[in-house]
Amino acid sequence: MHVKTVAWAPNGALRIIDQTRLPAEECYLDIDTFEGVIEAIRTLRVRGAPAIGVAAAMGLAASLRRWVKLPRERFLSAALSAADAIGAARPTAANLSWAMERMRKVARGTTGDAAAVFEALLQEAQAIWREDQAMCRAMGEAGQAVLAVGRGAAGAVGKRKSAARVVNVLTHCNTGALATGGMGTALAVVYVAVERGAKVHVWVDETRPLLQGSRLTAWELKKAGIPHTVQPDGAAASLMQRGKVDVVLVGADRVAKNGDTANKIGTYPLALAAKQHGVPLYVVAPSSSFDPKCKSGAAIPIEQRAAGEVSLTGSPAFNPAFDVTPAALISGWVTERGVLRPPFKA
Amino acid sequence: MHVKTVAWAPNGALRIIDQTRLPAEECYLDIDTFEGVIEAIRTLRVRGAPAIGVAAAMGLAASLRRWVKLPRERFLSAALSAADAIGAARPTAANLSWAMERMRKVARGTTGDAAAVFEALLQEAQAIWREDQAMCRAMGEAGQAVLAVGRGAAGAVGKRKSAARVVNVLTHCNTGALATGGMGTALAVVYVAVERGAKVHVWVDETRPLLQGSRLTAWELKKAGIPHTVQPDGAAASLMQRGKVDVVLVGADRVAKNGDTANKIGTYPLALAAKQHGVPLYVVAPSSSFDPKCKSGAAIPIEQRAAGEVSLTGSPAFNPAFDVTPAALISGWVTERGVLRPPFKA
Repeated sequence: MHVKTVAWAPNGALRIIDQTRLPAEECYLDIDTFEGVIEAIRTLRVRGAPAIGVAAAMGLAASLRRWVKLPRERFLSAALSAADAIGAARPTAANLSWAMERMRKVARGTTGDAAAVFEALLQEAQAIWREDQAMCRAMGEAGQAVLAVGRGAAGAVGKRKSAARVVNVLTHCNTGALATGGMGTALAVVYVAVERGAKVHVWVDETRPLLQGSRLTAWELKKAGIPHTVQPDGAAASLMQRGKVDVVLVGADRVAKNGDTANKIGTYPLALAAKQHGVPLYVVAPSSSFDPKCKSGAAIPIEQRAAGEVSLTGSPAFNPAFDVTPAALISGWVTERGVLRPPFKA
Repeated sequence: MHVKTVAWAPNGALRIIDQTRLPAEECYLDIDTFEGVIEAIRTLRVRGAPAIGVAAAMGLAASLRRWVKLPRERFLSAALSAADAIGAARPTAANLSWAMERMRKVARGTTGDAAAVFEALLQEAQAIWREDQAMCRAMGEAGQAVLAVGRGAAGAVGKRKSAARVVNVLTHCNTGALATGGMGTALAVVYVAVERGAKVHVWVDETRPLLQGSRLTAWELKKAGIPHTVQPDGAAASLMQRGKVDVVLVGADRVAKNGDTANKIGTYPLALAAKQHGVPLYVVAPSSSFDPKCKSGAAIPIEQRAAGEVSLTGSPAFNPAFDVTPAALISGWVTERGVLRPPFKA
């Protein structure tokens, strides 16, 4: 019921939804060259670390189809250079280099002619996609326990305490289908709940400066028919003050060993407001986002983005991509293996 | 050294800076008809409650010049209807109706011919402007005590503890010269400090959804040559977490008797972050913003603005103009009479 960020086109090309055209236009692109894959990743037509990894693998496989009649060695050499080129499209995207490494390994390790190698790569790309879908679903299912825990504050405001009561989830950034090859991370918890008949309403932080909430999350929830309301980031605390939020669900870019969590800028003030109003806040992220080599939040590097995203006057800007929420403000970490608590092991 | 939001043009017209063209263009408009005054207020060419009141009075006086040779009664009647019409331009602006009431009283209470009444109205408008300037300066001066109190967190980070140390002020929305007939409310504290030789750096919240911070505050600080940096609202807590903020200064739309304070949406989460990091937060507002009839924040009505300011998908939006910061999170209230604490008297 959620949108499909990636898919196979009937002719075997990679089909992606062009996220640079959202929410104004719903426009799908079929890509069958590795240059096209690189362009799509660089220009953020496909974004979100898991979605990038999946699209890169599928796009690489799709782009090799036209070389399938080459001699094995020439095919292999083309496949490996294409994988290298795609892998360099966004240097800091961990899932991208990880996916390309998997594809290279399969290419090198498969015997037979070009067609055999191509077939193996196609299957590996499909596996990467399927694994991502399964991972999203597993997080979504593990998160159901957390939604039950969260049924508190806003519920008490409602008149009936029946099974049909609406659960009010507040979220930040885009952690949904558009960010993954499946149903998302934090938003997967919502999709699974709705699938199982729960009534969920989502409060969507617009998420400045790049507006992933009002552009992407609102769009995909609307497509999925899930009730939602958009607010400026600065209004989230007012919602909690009014008892309108049961639980806050956010994603993570990196989780340190002690549980300190880097996520989209604006998550930390959200966590402070949640704490103030006794609203539980859960991080939903795959195990791959946990970095046991990173002791605490102090060790997480925070990337600064361009001033022009915020400054309208040529004045300097403080525009960090992420902030760090201390572990003490987080109620739990929902992963594909269940709800975890720090210290996290390797 | 700050910009002049209102002034007299050489020919006696009201001259305003057109705030709808900022920050792209610095464009001044001369207005000498009451229709022009109404248009400027309605379209937010002039905004900020004190600035609206001052511009309305000066604009009314300027618009009456061309009727100065009429018989007294016809002049009076024209003046009163013009005052009524201007007073209705923005129904909820308290300073606007207050300023028009002062002008009407003077018109009615002045003997002599049209020229005499016109002269009295001109002087009253001038008095309203001068009083606003004096009020701003008084707040700015009263706030110096607060800046001294605030010299803590960020200072400790610096290497030298000399008189030349930079004070780091964080502010929200526009509370400067552009919002008043003088040097502002919260930003007046900064202007006076700089005037007296202090080194101040201002962290400017962009202030979604209408961006008064990145559009207006950054622009007027740049014009005044005061160092400043713009950040998304969601990044303010990160600045405090890093020890980069000495004191938070905000304005107020209404202060309840117990000190609960309604101000631009996003002030409450700022106050929570300030509390968390031991950064003092002061409200700077004239006595006229204090409403002793209003017992607490619960009694302050919160206006909802249009969904289209936030929602990009046609989805519903929660878009309140203000939020309410509980008195317990506020270190003090800087007024033209000094720094006050609740309960406030009438």
